[in-house]
Amino acid sequence: MSIRIGIMGYGNLGRGMEYAVARNTDMELRYIFTRRNPSSIKPITTGVEVVNADDAINYTDAIDVMVLCGGSATDLPVQTPLYAKSFNVVDSFDTHAKIPEHYKNVDEAASSSGKTAVISAGWDPGLFSMNKLMAETILPHGSSYTFWGYGVSQGHSDAIRHINGVVDARQYTVPVQAALDAVRSGENPMLDTRQKHTRECYVVAEENADLSAIEREIVTMPHYFDEYDTTVHFITAQALSDEHSGMPHGGFVIRSGKTGYENGSNQIIEYALKLDSNPEFTSSVLTICARAAYKMNKEGMTGCKTILDIPPAYFSMDSGIDLIKKYL
Amino acid sequence: MSIRIGIMGYGNLGRGMEYAVARNTDMELRYIFTRRNPSSIKPITTGVEVVNADDAINYTDAIDVMVLCGGSATDLPVQTPLYAKSFNVVDSFDTHAKIPEHYKNVDEAASSSGKTAVISAGWDPGLFSMNKLMAETILPHGSSYTFWGYGVSQGHSDAIRHINGVVDARQYTVPVQAALDAVRSGENPMLDTRQKHTRECYVVAEENADLSAIEREIVTMPHYFDEYDTTVHFITAQALSDEHSGMPHGGFVIRSGKTGYENGSNQIIEYALKLDSNPEFTSSVLTICARAAYKMNKEGMTGCKTILDIPPAYFSMDSGIDLIKKYL
Repeated sequence: MSIRIGIMGYGNLGRGMEYAVARNTDMELRYIFTRRNPSSIKPITTGVEVVNADDAINYTDAIDVMVLCGGSATDLPVQTPLYAKSFNVVDSFDTHAKIPEHYKNVDEAASSSGKTAVISAGWDPGLFSMNKLMAETILPHGSSYTFWGYGVSQGHSDAIRHINGVVDARQYTVPVQAALDAVRSGENPMLDTRQKHTRECYVVAEENADLSAIEREIVTMPHYFDEYDTTVHFITAQALSDEHSGMPHGGFVIRSGKTGYENGSNQIIEYALKLDSNPEFTSSVLTICARAAYKMNKEGMTGCKTILDIPPAYFSMDSGIDLIKKYL
Repeated sequence: MSIRIGIMGYGNLGRGMEYAVARNTDMELRYIFTRRNPSSIKPITTGVEVVNADDAINYTDAIDVMVLCGGSATDLPVQTPLYAKSFNVVDSFDTHAKIPEHYKNVDEAASSSGKTAVISAGWDPGLFSMNKLMAETILPHGSSYTFWGYGVSQGHSDAIRHINGVVDARQYTVPVQAALDAVRSGENPMLDTRQKHTRECYVVAEENADLSAIEREIVTMPHYFDEYDTTVHFITAQALSDEHSGMPHGGFVIRSGKTGYENGSNQIIEYALKLDSNPEFTSSVLTICARAAYKMNKEGMTGCKTILDIPPAYFSMDSGIDLIKKYL
């Protein structure tokens, strides 16, 4: 008996979910819910029905877990508490500062309905959170370092697109190799913003635009670019489409800490991701959290959970002695 | 109110535990139990009482968690089931093939006593197990790679010491950089034993020993060395003591997997450890597992657990909304 999955929202993340569910033999994608015209959407998976989002509430018995693939700005703060009243749900809410409030809202809904919700699943927040917690508890005396990239920052790309004379843009966040090397050497360096990351911008400008004015506006933009060494490349719309349409990302969570007599030993824990596709990876994490939500709900573990609350065994198709034989 | 810790066994791991507990402000080391003459042991920590191991059973009310720091060959198979009848216990049992049997024995004891046991805590088995499980469930289509080192292998060092004419020896397991690079590139290489690791041996020989015979015996030793490229260095006892008395270790667990339409994206998850002191790091992991055992037992989660069964939040001093604010 498969875990029956519904997807709410069919953008990059929703499509990633469709591919990810297909790779998990204990799951079956049943419905895609959309605010667009359902007939405009052609799923890759055969047998999947596309339904108007407004009708989702009629499908409570047809779905074991609803995976919410909307955005954190406006969709999820409304959708996750709403659907947690009727479904086990999973989301990738990633507005860090608002997660405590989101947690509270979702927990109230899921606790009263007896459903299980997993929020903020993905890699940051998500896998990075889990690894940082583990590393800092193992090595309480030490320094933590997080690097992001090589990868596309949607927020920074958007900030460039809003500049006068810019047609399109893509911004890459790049970790500084020398800083990574210094951290890995165990010397526990103090690193400021500029020392950790550089920013590379690929910009398509309007014809006859003042390129040096655009470049100046980018590199001096407060908060987004002024604290970084930023490089601006002007390219054609064709080159942007040919060479910069992917959504790579990744990063590094490193803990460098001391143990033993008089801090005699340095110990380094590193967790690193190198992702060709950020949304496809995030949806892969949503998928195992959907399985965990299903298993937890079966065992009466209801309410709102984060990846910090889930025993690793719950992410797997296997359980008990099979996991011990396979992984220990 | 601190978590009161007892340590059973005061070798490298037991001493590491003493240092590790001192770094955790919610814990207090109360007793060290030993089979040696208690008066021969001088703990670093003030106020710690050293007690004969035979008397441990009289201390059930004075200790919240007993951390078993004996060896996997003969100590832990007996001790962990025995002490789980009276204490919450943690061990680092690492004979992979025998973990299912050990689990069963400990689970019977802990379940009937209402205590909580965490077995096979450390990094391999332990953190490596947890990360491999996570990575393989996130990326079900892909290849997993484990590399060990740069680090001292006690088993291989001992094997060399048994050769005629050898006084002492230290063997380092070394991951092959080219293999690591190939894995990280996402090309999912097939790697045989020889391609993944080399072995470096530092050997002190008896005067007038036949060095080339010793070298030949090492590099052709079945199972231990014959499948590897092995380098043998003859050095003095003084040089061995000066330059090779540390116990560094570490390793890499890498998952390289495909996602998306027609396997269009490669995704890489890497977990890496670079440890100056293997026993001190293992005891740091035992320490957070002791905290988890204590918290789980308070909540009625009894019986035998492994690191795969523990929600990350249980490893931390903090809980609930504080963890969300700190890590998500």
